[in-house]
Amino acid sequence: MEETREQIQEQIKHQGELVRKLKADKADKDVISQEVAKLLELKAKLGDEPAKKFDLKCPKGTRDYNPIQMAIREGVFNTIIKCFKRHGAETIDTPVFELKATLTGKYGEDAKLIYDLKDQGGELLSLRYDLTVPFARYLAMNKINAIKRYHIAKVYRRDNPAMTRGRFREFYQCDFDIAGQYDPMLPDAECVKIVVEILSQLEIGDYKIRVNHRKLLDGMFAACGVPEDKFRTICSAVDKLDKTFWADVRAEMIDEKGLDPQAADKIGFFVKFSGGLDVIEELLKDASLATQKEAVEGLQEMKLLLQYCEMYKIADKVVFDLSLARGLDYYTGVIYEACLQGYTHQPTSPASGQEEESVTVGSVAGGGRYDNLVGMFDAKGKKVPCVGVSIGIERIFAIMEHKALATNLKIRTTETEVYVVSAQKNLVEHRLRLCQELWDADIKTEQSYKKNPKPLDQFQYCESNGIPLSVIIGQSEIENNEVTLKNTLTRVERKVSRDALVQEIKKELAQLKSQ
Amino acid sequence: MEETREQIQEQIKHQGELVRKLKADKADKDVISQEVAKLLELKAKLGDEPAKKFDLKCPKGTRDYNPIQMAIREGVFNTIIKCFKRHGAETIDTPVFELKATLTGKYGEDAKLIYDLKDQGGELLSLRYDLTVPFARYLAMNKINAIKRYHIAKVYRRDNPAMTRGRFREFYQCDFDIAGQYDPMLPDAECVKIVVEILSQLEIGDYKIRVNHRKLLDGMFAACGVPEDKFRTICSAVDKLDKTFWADVRAEMIDEKGLDPQAADKIGFFVKFSGGLDVIEELLKDASLATQKEAVEGLQEMKLLLQYCEMYKIADKVVFDLSLARGLDYYTGVIYEACLQGYTHQPTSPASGQEEESVTVGSVAGGGRYDNLVGMFDAKGKKVPCVGVSIGIERIFAIMEHKALATNLKIRTTETEVYVVSAQKNLVEHRLRLCQELWDADIKTEQSYKKNPKPLDQFQYCESNGIPLSVIIGQSEIENNEVTLKNTLTRVERKVSRDALVQEIKKELAQLKSQ
Repeated sequence: MEETREQIQEQIKHQGELVRKLKADKADKDVISQEVAKLLELKAKLGDEPAKKFDLKCPKGTRDYNPIQMAIREGVFNTIIKCFKRHGAETIDTPVFELKATLTGKYGEDAKLIYDLKDQGGELLSLRYDLTVPFARYLAMNKINAIKRYHIAKVYRRDNPAMTRGRFREFYQCDFDIAGQYDPMLPDAECVKIVVEILSQLEIGDYKIRVNHRKLLDGMFAACGVPEDKFRTICSAVDKLDKTFWADVRAEMIDEKGLDPQAADKIGFFVKFSGGLDVIEELLKDASLATQKEAVEGLQEMKLLLQYCEMYKIADKVVFDLSLARGLDYYTGVIYEACLQGYTHQPTSPASGQEEESVTVGSVAGGGRYDNLVGMFDAKGKKVPCVGVSIGIERIFAIMEHKALATNLKIRTTETEVYVVSAQKNLVEHRLRLCQELWDADIKTEQSYKKNPKPLDQFQYCESNGIPLSVIIGQSEIENNEVTLKNTLTRVERKVSRDALVQEIKKELAQLKSQ
Repeated sequence: MEETREQIQEQIKHQGELVRKLKADKADKDVISQEVAKLLELKAKLGDEPAKKFDLKCPKGTRDYNPIQMAIREGVFNTIIKCFKRHGAETIDTPVFELKATLTGKYGEDAKLIYDLKDQGGELLSLRYDLTVPFARYLAMNKINAIKRYHIAKVYRRDNPAMTRGRFREFYQCDFDIAGQYDPMLPDAECVKIVVEILSQLEIGDYKIRVNHRKLLDGMFAACGVPEDKFRTICSAVDKLDKTFWADVRAEMIDEKGLDPQAADKIGFFVKFSGGLDVIEELLKDASLATQKEAVEGLQEMKLLLQYCEMYKIADKVVFDLSLARGLDYYTGVIYEACLQGYTHQPTSPASGQEEESVTVGSVAGGGRYDNLVGMFDAKGKKVPCVGVSIGIERIFAIMEHKALATNLKIRTTETEVYVVSAQKNLVEHRLRLCQELWDADIKTEQSYKKNPKPLDQFQYCESNGIPLSVIIGQSEIENNEVTLKNTLTRVERKVSRDALVQEIKKELAQLKSQ
């Protein structure tokens, strides 16, 4: 009963996504209405929803994870944590809320999305907005000059949720950062290598990692004649290029941000540059960039990064792209962003109203260098250079869930190995003693919580939960000091001496695992 | 540098605990002032604390976990999760905040400790106070009638923190619950079995699990002449017996709660009962309890629970105790609480002002049956009977950390297996290619982020981080297409052909693991 309901909900989610996609693609109206009808049918199956009457729901933009989703989540986390550990990272944790003052002045315009706690007396608190600012606070507070750490935890943003696309108000971040005074591009290149390892192992489709450099961007803006006090605001206009046409970005620069049209056009020339080492070499010859120290530095670092990427055998995944800007203010050097190729989308004009749904759908990882953030927390302004990457884990969950649904893959949510079955009534004591013995031998074991369960119910439980073995006891087994060991899949049964039971089960489980 | 600072902080924590303990034990004043002097010396070592100037701190009652604490935490979680999975549990997750209305009316007086979020427009939200109410909300919302699930996550209480004792405002709960309509005591006994498995495997010292029954308590109150509308308030007075003398509890019942002194004295008679099946049998013969249907039911269920505990071979850990009451309103049947034996404490009079520090120091797990909670969320009041247990993980962390500190155990915070060492300058390309090869072969590998690191620095890094192997390249190795493989502990070096490197490392690691 409960499983059916969950299955229907999964189908509704899937069907809803299909309908939205058809609408977004402006598909044939008959096709759309046919699919909408299917969606309504599914919803009707669920029947009356008391959730609405009682406000029996999760807060807007948040969700529960059911056992299937948790099993997928565990698998993804394992892959990612294994990679972080392969690169020698430690892990830390910080509180879910920080002093409000800790977050103040770190996020620019986005600060409006911070969740504040109610003033109930005592300190003023806010929920963490990302893991990077708490990390910087942690480094400064503990005077740590060098660390390689990962941190996987939930963060909070009062944003417009787009939950089918994996955009929530409560969501996981999955960060890996290297802090310390090191030589150029060595930690930076390792972050890019980590993104490649993770995305390749998760098998979520082909992807590219776009890379750029904040110093190069600033030098390019200077070369184009952008006044220095407009660098950040023009940078955030450039950041929209992955989802907006150049014409609209140009208009924003000129009309909203008061940029000289000639400067805008020069920017328009540069942001088209994208490619490998050859493009860097071409830009290094550009006369206007050559006059800008920052641009030259940025280009040389980009060159070194791409060379290191070749040594790491990941150059085929990495594209230098002068139009990559990334939103956050705190980046000071290399920036990068990984996008799934299958999910590239048409840039849309903001006026079309479609922007919301198509925003950076394909972005699954991003990060960069931020050398000044820790210094903001230190009494003497002492800096600790940092570079890091954040894996867009919610989007990856959404893709994996969709894949599991599409392939009809049966996902086990428990790991139970043995089910202890009563063949007759009044054997509860024998069952309990068997369970005790198996648990204490570290065998994953379940039994019915009914005193006298029906044999058929017990075997059905084994089958529907994918439990590979059952141990059956009845009067005859008890008399002969033995049990019946049954393989759920083959239905082969054999008698096993009571004393050899643990040993026989372990043998059989080892065989099953090796198959 | 950073490690030293952390070590000093650990020492300060340790020393602070010692001083508090001496004060609580009313030790000799000279001894105390000697230890206080040591504490101040340690604090002086840390020097000027910019944290205070800048309010560079975690919110009150919360803490960061450093890598060593995280390594301990990971170990404890692994033991606990393994146990939950051994018993066939699935896992779920819920948002860190709930609609305020979801929590309203579930916690009685303790509701004042709930953290509310600021009203920034939209829904009114509160941080979760425990994992049980969100679980009940989840069951009702998804119409789930039967599930066995665990949930490990942080919860929030605006309580007075006592952080050295493991009492925080943000803390982990570690819950296992069985929901479903089953036969008496079968799920309940399994919860107790789980507590025994976990506490025994964690090796944190000897412990006992006290058990009692809410129906028995209510029947006993009725037998003593307590009016029914005073059951809950008298119950919460009884709950204080583990930390307060009977005389004070009696005074609270009579003076504050208006109970008849004769009734109080009858309660005083019953709450002394504690023991095994023999005590249950004795109470079953008590004439005044025999008139109370609930008391008899409770006793019979207690009897069955203790019998099941014998079958599970955990009877030596379980003590029936009529003075156990537990605070929460929502329990309806069996209740239990596990206490470490080494941590039993003197009951103190509230007037002494010491109560704060000594409250339930030894309690490391607790739970019980709550059959009505899910019904509070269902439109038709449909009930789903539940029983569960919560492991007091923060206290366990505190004990484990203390143990690690006391035994001077070196805890590794990374799992790095191989360090790639440059023997000479200008070999960065060779190092990067080696790292790529080892990472892609799933070998946990690190290298220096300096272009030309000193050999001595590299070897010292291996030693201080417990990295078992290093791979050394120099000009001669490159010329001979080989590397030097060095065992950090034995300092034995041998030449290995470049092509056989991965294979040789895996062989050596397997050997090291088997030692």
